[in-house]
Amino acid sequence: MTDATATATTVTNPYAAGAAYIDGEYVPLAEARIPITDWGFIRSDVTYDVVHVWKGRFFRLEDHLERFERSAAGMRFTLPHSRAGQREILMECVRLSGLRDAYVEMICTRGTPPPGSRDPRQARNRYFAFAAPFIWVADEAQRMRGLHLVISAVQRIPPESVDPTLKNFHWGDLIRGLFDAYDRGGETVALVDGDGNLTEGPGFNIFVVKSGKVATPHRGVLEGITRRTVIELCAECGLPLDLRPVSPGEARSADEVFLSTTAGGLLPVTTIDGKPVGDGNLGPVTDRLRDLYWSKQEAGWHGTDVDYTDHA
Amino acid sequence: MTDATATATTVTNPYAAGAAYIDGEYVPLAEARIPITDWGFIRSDVTYDVVHVWKGRFFRLEDHLERFERSAAGMRFTLPHSRAGQREILMECVRLSGLRDAYVEMICTRGTPPPGSRDPRQARNRYFAFAAPFIWVADEAQRMRGLHLVISAVQRIPPESVDPTLKNFHWGDLIRGLFDAYDRGGETVALVDGDGNLTEGPGFNIFVVKSGKVATPHRGVLEGITRRTVIELCAECGLPLDLRPVSPGEARSADEVFLSTTAGGLLPVTTIDGKPVGDGNLGPVTDRLRDLYWSKQEAGWHGTDVDYTDHA
Repeated sequence: MTDATATATTVTNPYAAGAAYIDGEYVPLAEARIPITDWGFIRSDVTYDVVHVWKGRFFRLEDHLERFERSAAGMRFTLPHSRAGQREILMECVRLSGLRDAYVEMICTRGTPPPGSRDPRQARNRYFAFAAPFIWVADEAQRMRGLHLVISAVQRIPPESVDPTLKNFHWGDLIRGLFDAYDRGGETVALVDGDGNLTEGPGFNIFVVKSGKVATPHRGVLEGITRRTVIELCAECGLPLDLRPVSPGEARSADEVFLSTTAGGLLPVTTIDGKPVGDGNLGPVTDRLRDLYWSKQEAGWHGTDVDYTDHA
Repeated sequence: MTDATATATTVTNPYAAGAAYIDGEYVPLAEARIPITDWGFIRSDVTYDVVHVWKGRFFRLEDHLERFERSAAGMRFTLPHSRAGQREILMECVRLSGLRDAYVEMICTRGTPPPGSRDPRQARNRYFAFAAPFIWVADEAQRMRGLHLVISAVQRIPPESVDPTLKNFHWGDLIRGLFDAYDRGGETVALVDGDGNLTEGPGFNIFVVKSGKVATPHRGVLEGITRRTVIELCAECGLPLDLRPVSPGEARSADEVFLSTTAGGLLPVTTIDGKPVGDGNLGPVTDRLRDLYWSKQEAGWHGTDVDYTDHA
């Protein structure tokens, strides 16, 4: 690690494409591997969270750590690190990578029960983390002109099966919907619930704006930290916001539609199922909230500085 | 590989605890790892199948390979190996391990899209396989006296979200149900669907027997190969069998209840939610079908011999 640390800020930094913490060691992300017998893989018995770093600062780090701890407890995992220990590991992943804008993920898996056992209570839970270059759900062109969204008939896994507020890797429905969207000329997808109402898409919550009022689905979705941020920003701007069922028809006839995600903040949607949303251009409410999201963040709102100095 | 091959049948065989095929190489199972950036892990974007070897013979190998290929196609994976290539890899895993009774798993993951991309179409799919010592869903005592089953209110992920006939690692609901069962003094769990009817449990289908008639849920379940085998055995015995909705009440008032799984064949259930099924003892229909299942298999039914000789 000493060598790597010494070159952390040079172009030859072996962690520049990402740094991971795995089984007590820091390794380049591309080398980070987990045992195929870990139930985190072969049963998707795992929880995770993603926080981002923007211009050298974590955004809402404590909120993400708190949600991660809640997810882990809800799925009966015992995290092998304290809050302070986790903070240190995430910081070190970012520091090693040298990345000023990063996508930082923490993961807890069930682990592997002893040979012959299929009892998850007998497994020692594992903890992984990594920092990778910041990932955008939408590329730059899409962010400028807005995304082409498809509303799929695929249903989001219901809360009665898997609790969506405990962040998990059950993306089979989302990926199935994504292929459905591609087949229909779309770029991303929103799924519905059993009643036909909107839920969420692969990695994002969804908001609709009509006559200056904002709404987002209240149930069957991840309680996104960026979603929470948007709710706070609406309050700050005096924009009325409802958490309630939102139908696909409401999205199609909205003035504006946007997505919220750690991987990109607020992302405008300008077509749904091939038809323009509003006049098909980026809308003023989305624009205003998006500007606020980034400008407040750059001013240090909910920020935690990363210490990039070499302590080796 | 030569060293290992040479000792394949001795006690020092490094593959004795399991052999895996990963990225073109054979390694001891405990050393087999997958990249944490593979969507097979971080999106559970993966399919698999499990076939078993009993007394040196695969059981229904072609049926498992066929289902695996169907699952892969349904999830838009491109398998990097032909049927013959896969057969060879699975055989080699078993041969290296020297195991006469083995649990053999094949896995296809989405892989990792290029840096910055979140488009699954841009990822190269990966193939893994391994042979491990035969795993029983129930231990010997449980097989002798019958399992204590709990029927949980947790709902199996519905087909409208994730197609259960395409074998997948979305076990969040099953694990949640399993903890529910443990909390209530049970050993394993069956989940219900949105209508409250029985579906399946962690790794098994479920059958009820009443007045000489057999029934098993028709929908929202994996179409298990052992389930199919039980259906064939019932026909052979002249036992009427229905594929239809089965309510929890029907299971509670059944004469006999049993589970079917590659990891153990037919497993009797003698209590449900703490109350005896029938008279609480193993029933004659379950006994008869279970005997047939093993005796026919040992006589070579649907069998494919493993060649354990060293070709190195």
